[in-house]
Amino acid sequence: MASNINPNLQRILDNIRISDFSPDEYFREILKGNRLFLSKAITLLESRKPEHQKLSAELIEKILPYTGKSKRIGITGVPGVGKSTFINAFGKLILSQGHKLAILAIDPSSQISKGSILGDKNRMPDIAGDDRVFIRPSPNAGFLGGVAAKTRETILLCEAAGYDVIIVETVGVGQSETAVASMTDMFLLLLASGTGDDLQGIKRGIMEMADLLIFTKYDGQNKTKIDMEKRLFKNVLRLFPPKQSGWKPDVTEVSAIENFGIENVWSKVNEFFDLIRKNGYLEKNRQKQRVKWFYETFDFLVKTYLRENFEAELHRIEKQIEENKIYPFSAARQLLEKFFSEAYK
Amino acid sequence: MASNINPNLQRILDNIRISDFSPDEYFREILKGNRLFLSKAITLLESRKPEHQKLSAELIEKILPYTGKSKRIGITGVPGVGKSTFINAFGKLILSQGHKLAILAIDPSSQISKGSILGDKNRMPDIAGDDRVFIRPSPNAGFLGGVAAKTRETILLCEAAGYDVIIVETVGVGQSETAVASMTDMFLLLLASGTGDDLQGIKRGIMEMADLLIFTKYDGQNKTKIDMEKRLFKNVLRLFPPKQSGWKPDVTEVSAIENFGIENVWSKVNEFFDLIRKNGYLEKNRQKQRVKWFYETFDFLVKTYLRENFEAELHRIEKQIEENKIYPFSAARQLLEKFFSEAYK
Repeated sequence: MASNINPNLQRILDNIRISDFSPDEYFREILKGNRLFLSKAITLLESRKPEHQKLSAELIEKILPYTGKSKRIGITGVPGVGKSTFINAFGKLILSQGHKLAILAIDPSSQISKGSILGDKNRMPDIAGDDRVFIRPSPNAGFLGGVAAKTRETILLCEAAGYDVIIVETVGVGQSETAVASMTDMFLLLLASGTGDDLQGIKRGIMEMADLLIFTKYDGQNKTKIDMEKRLFKNVLRLFPPKQSGWKPDVTEVSAIENFGIENVWSKVNEFFDLIRKNGYLEKNRQKQRVKWFYETFDFLVKTYLRENFEAELHRIEKQIEENKIYPFSAARQLLEKFFSEAYK
Repeated sequence: MASNINPNLQRILDNIRISDFSPDEYFREILKGNRLFLSKAITLLESRKPEHQKLSAELIEKILPYTGKSKRIGITGVPGVGKSTFINAFGKLILSQGHKLAILAIDPSSQISKGSILGDKNRMPDIAGDDRVFIRPSPNAGFLGGVAAKTRETILLCEAAGYDVIIVETVGVGQSETAVASMTDMFLLLLASGTGDDLQGIKRGIMEMADLLIFTKYDGQNKTKIDMEKRLFKNVLRLFPPKQSGWKPDVTEVSAIENFGIENVWSKVNEFFDLIRKNGYLEKNRQKQRVKWFYETFDFLVKTYLRENFEAELHRIEKQIEENKIYPFSAARQLLEKFFSEAYK
């Protein structure tokens, strides 16, 4: 549940079963921007129950024509880089420009802690209580379609509800960056001063994905250090192959304390979107993302089906393979033959 | 075909249809170390024809108990690093110690050039003609199981034929390193002097996989430079998390011109294998590789089946998804329903 909903309302809402509403009711309320229904709908699509899955699939089909109008922005950075502080300031500016902002998270590791340790109110004090902001922590994994799929669907629901800037944030430690990049249009990488020295800190692949590198905490003694590192990173960026979007990645800097640089980031973001709207990359890239999503989902469904229906058999096969009693290729082929009635006859 | 077979014999062999032999004949001849049959058997498993596939699957099942006794060593390095020169010198030493050596290649890009531009005789003049060396270029891709699967099977065949050191080489430019690591026990990374300066040149992921970093061309003016870079890389290696094998990766150097360092590499290799045999990692890791291979093969077979049987339908679906007329998740689910008779009723 979004933590920026009044707890009392939340309790009442929780008592209404999510399947008490029809796809039509969800559809109508979400298009009106009803946050409670939006929140309920997301819970619906995270649910394991077949009737919920059916309902949410119907709902998503219905809202499809009302999606796609937002700027989808991915933001990543290692823990401690000041991601929440940045999003707080960035979000404040975005709201002041008349936008509605959704902040979603992808964090595969959050399955244990069920979201961040600090509440959203503490993380982003200036925006968390605002009616024009919708904050949703990382969905539970293990459900049909995985964390990434659920976040993709949440983006669509938020767009239908009128949120025209969507931030998908992730902790820059795992493979979640690729997932974020696969569902957003632009990718921002937050950097702390000193990143240049530390080979552990930053993965080359992530840097290649970034459209804008943003040094945080550009204040006090950090300034000189960051100025130097900025030059280094600008040089590094030049070594990468040109982007399909036609955009030239840049390096910039912000300070939350000195309230510096946020406007510049926002104008870079708008510059980027102007470019990719004009040159057609925005739509072409989203088309590609959707097709990729289709194949990923299919893979995922096959794996889920396999796990759910052949658990004992898989265990037996794995044991035989480990003991070198069966050849992995033959085992895979035999399993496939069980799957497909017509295949490999 | 292995290029170190007499061309006349090769021609005769080519005229015998590979399916003229029974799995039993292949089995007996390969166990005897018959290189011609080994070569034929590899051609057999690269074949697209269902009867060949059946034959090679039977053969592999038969030889399984006779596999696994070799040292499987992956070697990578960017073009120009001196890979052939290194393998030539390294192989010469290995032969002098009484071993039989197979050299296989994984190179997804070789589909066009069909192997290296230089013949094996030119690439590795000291060993290419030797009867105790079996050299096989990268298999053709696109066959059932992919390049990696075919190379895995070739390793097994070579082991059954008595080759007790297997080198799998790859060009250090693509994703083939992961494939090589998934079928070998130890991973050697060849480095050229100057790699430290060039962020383009080396992927962090590849460095993390390496068990031994080997600077080539450690001669003349390169020496001082490499000595410095060696220290840098030793420091970098320390930053990586400890390896599951319990082995501490090291950096060393060789020179082909000055005939220096090759013995040291070979003794490091033996040290590594002593360790992982004693602590059980060798067998545990191979078990894991086989199970992973099983799942990868299954994925691959599903994809192949999909492409071969649903091409028109996939094209139609992709178009609908691109035009945002159908929701990727629903499309994947519908396709799955066509696949599995009992699933998701």
